[in-house]
Amino acid sequence: MINKKIIIQVMGLLLLIEGFFLGISSLISLYYKEYDLLGILITAGICFVSGLILQLFTKNAEKNIGKREGYIIVSLVWVIFSAFGALPFVISGAIPSYTDAFFETISGFTTTGASILNDIEAVPHGLLFWRSLTQWLGGMGIIVLSIAILPIFGIGGMQLFVAEVPGPTPDKLHPRIKETAKRLWGIYILFTFAEVILLKIGGMTWFDAVNHSFTTMATGGYSTKQASIAHFDSPFIHYVITLFMFLAGTNFTLSYFALHLKFGKVFKNEEFRFYLGFTIFFTAAITISLWHFHDFTAEKSFRESLFQVVSIMTTTGFATADYLMWKPFVIVAIFALMFFGGSAGSTGGSMKIVRVALLLKNSYQELKRIIHPNAIIPVRMNGKSVPPQIISNILAFVVFYMLISIVSTIIMSAFGYDLDTSLGAVAATLGNIGPGIGKVGPVENYAHIPVFGKWFLSFLMLIGRLELFTVIVLFSPSFWKK
Amino acid sequence: MINKKIIIQVMGLLLLIEGFFLGISSLISLYYKEYDLLGILITAGICFVSGLILQLFTKNAEKNIGKREGYIIVSLVWVIFSAFGALPFVISGAIPSYTDAFFETISGFTTTGASILNDIEAVPHGLLFWRSLTQWLGGMGIIVLSIAILPIFGIGGMQLFVAEVPGPTPDKLHPRIKETAKRLWGIYILFTFAEVILLKIGGMTWFDAVNHSFTTMATGGYSTKQASIAHFDSPFIHYVITLFMFLAGTNFTLSYFALHLKFGKVFKNEEFRFYLGFTIFFTAAITISLWHFHDFTAEKSFRESLFQVVSIMTTTGFATADYLMWKPFVIVAIFALMFFGGSAGSTGGSMKIVRVALLLKNSYQELKRIIHPNAIIPVRMNGKSVPPQIISNILAFVVFYMLISIVSTIIMSAFGYDLDTSLGAVAATLGNIGPGIGKVGPVENYAHIPVFGKWFLSFLMLIGRLELFTVIVLFSPSFWKK
Repeated sequence: MINKKIIIQVMGLLLLIEGFFLGISSLISLYYKEYDLLGILITAGICFVSGLILQLFTKNAEKNIGKREGYIIVSLVWVIFSAFGALPFVISGAIPSYTDAFFETISGFTTTGASILNDIEAVPHGLLFWRSLTQWLGGMGIIVLSIAILPIFGIGGMQLFVAEVPGPTPDKLHPRIKETAKRLWGIYILFTFAEVILLKIGGMTWFDAVNHSFTTMATGGYSTKQASIAHFDSPFIHYVITLFMFLAGTNFTLSYFALHLKFGKVFKNEEFRFYLGFTIFFTAAITISLWHFHDFTAEKSFRESLFQVVSIMTTTGFATADYLMWKPFVIVAIFALMFFGGSAGSTGGSMKIVRVALLLKNSYQELKRIIHPNAIIPVRMNGKSVPPQIISNILAFVVFYMLISIVSTIIMSAFGYDLDTSLGAVAATLGNIGPGIGKVGPVENYAHIPVFGKWFLSFLMLIGRLELFTVIVLFSPSFWKK
Repeated sequence: MINKKIIIQVMGLLLLIEGFFLGISSLISLYYKEYDLLGILITAGICFVSGLILQLFTKNAEKNIGKREGYIIVSLVWVIFSAFGALPFVISGAIPSYTDAFFETISGFTTTGASILNDIEAVPHGLLFWRSLTQWLGGMGIIVLSIAILPIFGIGGMQLFVAEVPGPTPDKLHPRIKETAKRLWGIYILFTFAEVILLKIGGMTWFDAVNHSFTTMATGGYSTKQASIAHFDSPFIHYVITLFMFLAGTNFTLSYFALHLKFGKVFKNEEFRFYLGFTIFFTAAITISLWHFHDFTAEKSFRESLFQVVSIMTTTGFATADYLMWKPFVIVAIFALMFFGGSAGSTGGSMKIVRVALLLKNSYQELKRIIHPNAIIPVRMNGKSVPPQIISNILAFVVFYMLISIVSTIIMSAFGYDLDTSLGAVAATLGNIGPGIGKVGPVENYAHIPVFGKWFLSFLMLIGRLELFTVIVLFSPSFWKK
């Protein structure tokens, strides 16, 4: 039997947390004295009242959270946070359509960064702050945050953690899950703080610095400017953001080691070496193309290329240039990068470097197995051999990823979009990137997608953020069987 | 040590076989009294002389053919057959450029069917016959034919068979490989003969009937007409070709059972059920779209849809319509179908249905494994559980397929082609289909591809036909190590 009461109780508790962060956003609104104050306060009130009511009716819930409850809670909380989080946009009138507001909010929480706003600068500061905050909360994870700050998740915490952070190599920073969650959020806050300071030094206002730091560290990519990072004509700002996007796409466990000056552990990590290798390779190739075919200086070629490569690969989605204006091979390379994703244990989405790396290694080993069919040739990662169950799990992951991509592309093309746009919209939402190719490129947005399409892409963002299985498993009949 | 002498000896022997089939083509030329006679005869002569010389110098070769020799022989023979087979086109002047002639010939042998000819009807009959014959020989396999008819492959035959027909489920029709090869070629010839008769009844000339039967059963797709099958305005012909394309994409072992009236075995076969299921599903979806959005009758909608679905899925590549004029979602669906391929043990290429089916099954089982992590939940196929090595092999296959597709698409786009054309050309050559999407669609051809691009796509056809590993393994350092 699924423990429905505990699910409802946890949902109530989490709504209180959302209400708290809406409360903080209302302070920004108050400071700027803009029209969005009421919408934010009403929503905060709704969250508090609903949260308390749900708590009240489930007082006698048994405190056990099993595997199934874990998957249900995690999938549900992302939907409910988005459903409530969309209200301030609608109530204030900044985004009149609820579909658009929901799309914008789930795109925030899932750190996708796909926007339907045609004039971002016209949105009041409180809402822009809330919009950036959704990404920051979603980046390290709503559940991970709850585990860090709430005592209730002492026992079921691990189940929830695994459902929200389902990477194939779960390395914990501490045997106790609460400590792990605290350390992860600690590094996250530290990096965000450091970026704020550097962006302020680079010439941003405090407001822009905070918002962009939130959305950089979350690999979210929401900007307070319609032109994204291209708005800031400062190489320093571009390099700072590139650095923090790269950090956000790195396993936070490695950052923890680095902060403790254990750099050897960082460079020995194979996923990190693949991550660095891919970055260098793609940046070099695109730099050469930009320098050769465009009227760019060497520095600008390098900077624009590095920025776009890191932005797409970490699934952030900031833009300093319209890469669709570049050579076709660069566009194809950037499209391919959309499937790489950040490292496991980072805030980046998509397939994740460790999966790509294990796939490449397994394929290479298979060549040896063909020549020596009787030898046992395991795949190794960080010096340890990877059990076949993990390989089979990654296979299933990739197949689901491809299958969902193909079917979704067919569905998007049924709205009349061409192959580029359909593929681009699917890769960019499923991979939690934001800008895609075709008519959803870096200087366009998702406003023109029809209503059903927006709900469909919202669903893709959700399953992408939770690395497929957490959501898909809910649709499997065997999940609901005794 | 690799037994070089036996490799050279076998190559010489196979050149004699190529010379023999060129001799047959010269009879057609003689009959029509056209200018291509000399070119074909000269090439036949070159094949005989080179073949005999190679034989002469390797008389004392040891007769053992191991794994490595098998991979080298199989990869090499397809290249050498194409290199020599291209000569009649060049010598006769029908295709003046050797690059173009090589492309056309390897596209023939690999049963791809991608053409560089802008006016097929202008090519003399002997060369057209040779062009269709390359597909027919390549379809069931040059090596499989040699095993069937030559005594030399008594011992090493199995190694060669596995290298040329490397499907994941090698079911042999007879414990002795020679008997298996004979039976396969027997069914192949029988079906080809039956199709010739039916096409003649449908109103084709004997010449057209034979040529189209060759290229249907090979899932090759070369036509003697510039407009492909659209040239023949006869529903009967369209249905006949659809039927034989479907048969050619079916495992020939199942056809063997069917011919012995063991229909139960056919319908119990899971790959066949997936194959039939995919055909019905895609045909139904596209039929509805054609009927609804175009000015087609129900019958025409069904026929055009069925023809294109079967043609693309079996990797034949015949066309009765320009599917690029259809709705975007149909184009995307057809593009997706390019990755399905025929059944294992058929003449169809691409990823093959059995791999797609096993991938889907493994992914579904993985959902159960997530809920019950301690249970052992194997993937089953035809009632038997599939060992993890095969799953890992399929994973490697798919990863190589995707990796080669992505890298090749980037290379093609470096020539300035857009994403559609680059993806289309790669999917259509690697999958041995022929027509793709974009500028290599069903009413276009590959003439406009630059020289380097043609050689590159020729290489893709080769590795696609030999199901990747047979060729890729040659590039692996461990292959050449002691």
